Amino acid sequence: METVLIDGRWQPSREQVGSFRAENPATGEAIGPEFPVSGAADVELALTSAAAAAPALADTDPERIAAFLDTYASGIDAAAGDLCALANEETALGVKPRLRDVELPRTVNQLRLAAQAARSRTWTQPVIDTQAGLRSLFAPLGKPVAVFGPNNFPLAFNAVSGGDFAAAIAARNPVIAKAHPAHPQTCRELAKLAHAALNKVHLPTATVQMLYHMPAELGLKLASDRRMGAVAFTGSRAGGLALKAAADKAGVPLYAEMSSINPVFMLPGALAERGAEIAREFAASCLAGSGQFCTNPGVVIVPADETGDAFVQAAREAFEAAPAGTLLARSVLDHLQQSVSALRGAGAEVLCGGNPAGAPAFRFQPTLLVTDATRFAADAPALQQEAFGPVSLIVRADGDAAMESVAQSFEGNLTGTIYSARDGQDDMLARRIASALRPRVGRLLNDRMPTGVAVSAAMNHGGPYPATGHPGFTSVGLPASIRRFAALECYDHVREDRLPPELRDRNPDGRLQRCIDGVWTTADVAGASA
Amino acid sequence: METVLIDGRWQPSREQVGSFRAENPATGEAIGPEFPVSGAADVELALTSAAAAAPALADTDPERIAAFLDTYASGIDAAAGDLCALANEETALGVKPRLRDVELPRTVNQLRLAAQAARSRTWTQPVIDTQAGLRSLFAPLGKPVAVFGPNNFPLAFNAVSGGDFAAAIAARNPVIAKAHPAHPQTCRELAKLAHAALNKVHLPTATVQMLYHMPAELGLKLASDRRMGAVAFTGSRAGGLALKAAADKAGVPLYAEMSSINPVFMLPGALAERGAEIAREFAASCLAGSGQFCTNPGVVIVPADETGDAFVQAAREAFEAAPAGTLLARSVLDHLQQSVSALRGAGAEVLCGGNPAGAPAFRFQPTLLVTDATRFAADAPALQQEAFGPVSLIVRADGDAAMESVAQSFEGNLTGTIYSARDGQDDMLARRIASALRPRVGRLLNDRMPTGVAVSAAMNHGGPYPATGHPGFTSVGLPASIRRFAALECYDHVREDRLPPELRDRNPDGRLQRCIDGVWTTADVAGASA
Repeated sequence: METVLIDGRWQPSREQVGSFRAENPATGEAIGPEFPVSGAADVELALTSAAAAAPALADTDPERIAAFLDTYASGIDAAAGDLCALANEETALGVKPRLRDVELPRTVNQLRLAAQAARSRTWTQPVIDTQAGLRSLFAPLGKPVAVFGPNNFPLAFNAVSGGDFAAAIAARNPVIAKAHPAHPQTCRELAKLAHAALNKVHLPTATVQMLYHMPAELGLKLASDRRMGAVAFTGSRAGGLALKAAADKAGVPLYAEMSSINPVFMLPGALAERGAEIAREFAASCLAGSGQFCTNPGVVIVPADETGDAFVQAAREAFEAAPAGTLLARSVLDHLQQSVSALRGAGAEVLCGGNPAGAPAFRFQPTLLVTDATRFAADAPALQQEAFGPVSLIVRADGDAAMESVAQSFEGNLTGTIYSARDGQDDMLARRIASALRPRVGRLLNDRMPTGVAVSAAMNHGGPYPATGHPGFTSVGLPASIRRFAALECYDHVREDRLPPELRDRNPDGRLQRCIDGVWTTADVAGASA
Repeated sequence: METVLIDGRWQPSREQVGSFRAENPATGEAIGPEFPVSGAADVELALTSAAAAAPALADTDPERIAAFLDTYASGIDAAAGDLCALANEETALGVKPRLRDVELPRTVNQLRLAAQAARSRTWTQPVIDTQAGLRSLFAPLGKPVAVFGPNNFPLAFNAVSGGDFAAAIAARNPVIAKAHPAHPQTCRELAKLAHAALNKVHLPTATVQMLYHMPAELGLKLASDRRMGAVAFTGSRAGGLALKAAADKAGVPLYAEMSSINPVFMLPGALAERGAEIAREFAASCLAGSGQFCTNPGVVIVPADETGDAFVQAAREAFEAAPAGTLLARSVLDHLQQSVSALRGAGAEVLCGGNPAGAPAFRFQPTLLVTDATRFAADAPALQQEAFGPVSLIVRADGDAAMESVAQSFEGNLTGTIYSARDGQDDMLARRIASALRPRVGRLLNDRMPTGVAVSAAMNHGGPYPATGHPGFTSVGLPASIRRFAALECYDHVREDRLPPELRDRNPDGRLQRCIDGVWTTADVAGASA
């Protein structure tokens, strides 16, 4: 039986309530060793240890935090071959290009950018009012952060190495990682590297803890513990809402990313101009990674005219020609069958695919469903269910007004996309669709598919409820994503030698941008002694 | 029967479920006309109207929003005499200096600062990544904001004129104001001025709506309506938690300020150095406005030594010499009696005061209670109940460790204060107390009472749960307070002519500070056409 990482060391579960093994999605066979399902004693020890480590961590020099993140990043880089092989075995995601060329470098890059943000302190956004004697900044929570990782990015969103992890650590908070049980070996190897990096830079070893699995009710208990500073979750709508309810009750901020169907509007002029090209783009985006992206184009709104017919025909041909990809896990296949069945039950018709692609692998056919705008508007909630996998619903809209009313029927999503003609003929309609979509999506795109999520300071990987739990935060993009794990702290006439370095008269490194009396500057506060 | 302000006009309640009149707290007599208690039909119409106005308001030129806020501010200024007389009659707060010289000018100033923030767009914090083709900013929610006003600032925190109102409007969201029923006439006069200002600048008249009163369950229904963009509340712990639970369930962000006892630590050296002076400061802060401030120093930690004895003696004399102030309302007196009784039940002893000061006015004696650190730690939750009024609990701590452990026992508060010696003799202890307090308070002060809350960009009037519902936001201080009513919006390769002005290549006014490729600047994006 594998050990868990709690209280600064790898140790047997204190209260094992079950065990499990990974499954190879390509064969359906159990692989690797037995992993423990943790009971309450493990969670309690993790919480106690993290809460004890939190104050010291908050007071740590950012340079040491950065050194940890960089050391960990280098460790991942050095172990890239083994990590990608394990992740491939557990998730069926391709070693190349996906894991080795895209996801692993992204993971390393995120950790390094987080190191840079920690070092440069940009996320603290210091504001100084010299007249009023007030100085404020974003600061560590001084409490643990629990990160619940998803199944679809075994490296870049892993609870112990991904974006949420990096952001929480950059803000100098201890992390209790709840691994995803679909890829436990990958999690173990990552956590080992994290643990080694902690030891190397002499950070409190309870800074990073990891449990492989726990009963759902124990996850809720963790999220609703008043000792928690915040919780981050990426996963299903049902899981996210349950965690949110638990955390809300205890006043613990929860940042949940919990499904999105990412509407894409194909305007008539765009299809007339370059419909075949867009159909190829759409199929590639929807089928990449077997469609298992948060920003997968799950619903496409297409005019009910000839250009629309041609687009649908081209998309269908592309879907039919594409191989059935292997899904991440048995549970993904089960959910996908249920989702497609629910969409059909709500009146969507299958254009192509619609079924599992045959044992032993967890495969599903590239699938297109279709409905019309009237039906979509009539039963929007049922037809807006996410089908996580290589599936998209085409909504045929007869005229501009129908298209606009579809846009107005969406609940909160991560992204919304508009393809329009280059020559300006769609501009009026594009404006109307954009007005309807804007308050309903976190990221609005023009003329490109939403599946690329760049790690940029200007990214918003977030969106209105129920895509996430709060419209003001992003889970991707540094330093903005760090703000989720920070508290606003104000110092009122606090003596200068007691202020954190970011708020003292002297700029801490001569480079930190601070808003002093209304102006962003790297200068010292006027009158600071040299 | 008075009319309510819904759907752009003053009209009789659609569904009146009761009525009420104001009471003069100085006499206990009912004053002024009858006001309606609104039923579900009023709330529904307000919601429908606000939701309909929201998109147009979000698209409004910020200049018009600023013009509204400035016009409204001038209207309040011009009506200052009448407004202060009415507010005085309804709340017993003094006309001079409190209402006329402090609160009304603050209200006018807040509205003007909000106008300035709207005009300058500083709250949008644009971030541009030219390489990645991504641009993001904080934008209007595009949905209504409900503001529930408190009893203690009839002007500066009034639901229809105060800080939350100004911030929500500056972000171009319609406001549904739930007035506080203790000062309905003041609310009516303010709302009339707001309505007139809307008409003058030609904003949608449903931008500002106001209901005087509604059954508690209807307030919960409003907060949990999916059409709401956000809810702001200032008031009691019980009321705030109930609203938060309702809003959380619907995924509506709720910003609640819901009681705080604002611990003040008196370090031994400070008392030895200037104990009498500090005792006067403390009494003045605790008794001003009959103690009815969110940041009232409700608990004071004093060494169990001779300097501590002298401080307590001096404070007691000041409290005993002070007149019994009149409270805001009958309900405040009732709650205060219950709170003092609960503190006594938890073991606190009355040093002076402790009782109502006699009919007909709603008055309460300046009151000091005392307990020791051991008892405080043993029953912290019971002894941390807010007693809203001229009341403070003194905790005697025998030694530095006892003082530190009291600091570690506090739940989330708006403020925490440390008085220490000027000569440095308290510095070690001050550091330990500050470490313990920092993650527990929103604003940390040195050597001054917490009751002043400056309207500054560097203010944080917020704090960890349960002082508020989220540690990352402030309800006072512009432009920061506006961020509560904003959504993060990202534009991914959106054509330049479709971007909001803040994100276009050209700086919209040559003065807006934007973070372009990591640097805050007022420059255009490089390569912008002239």
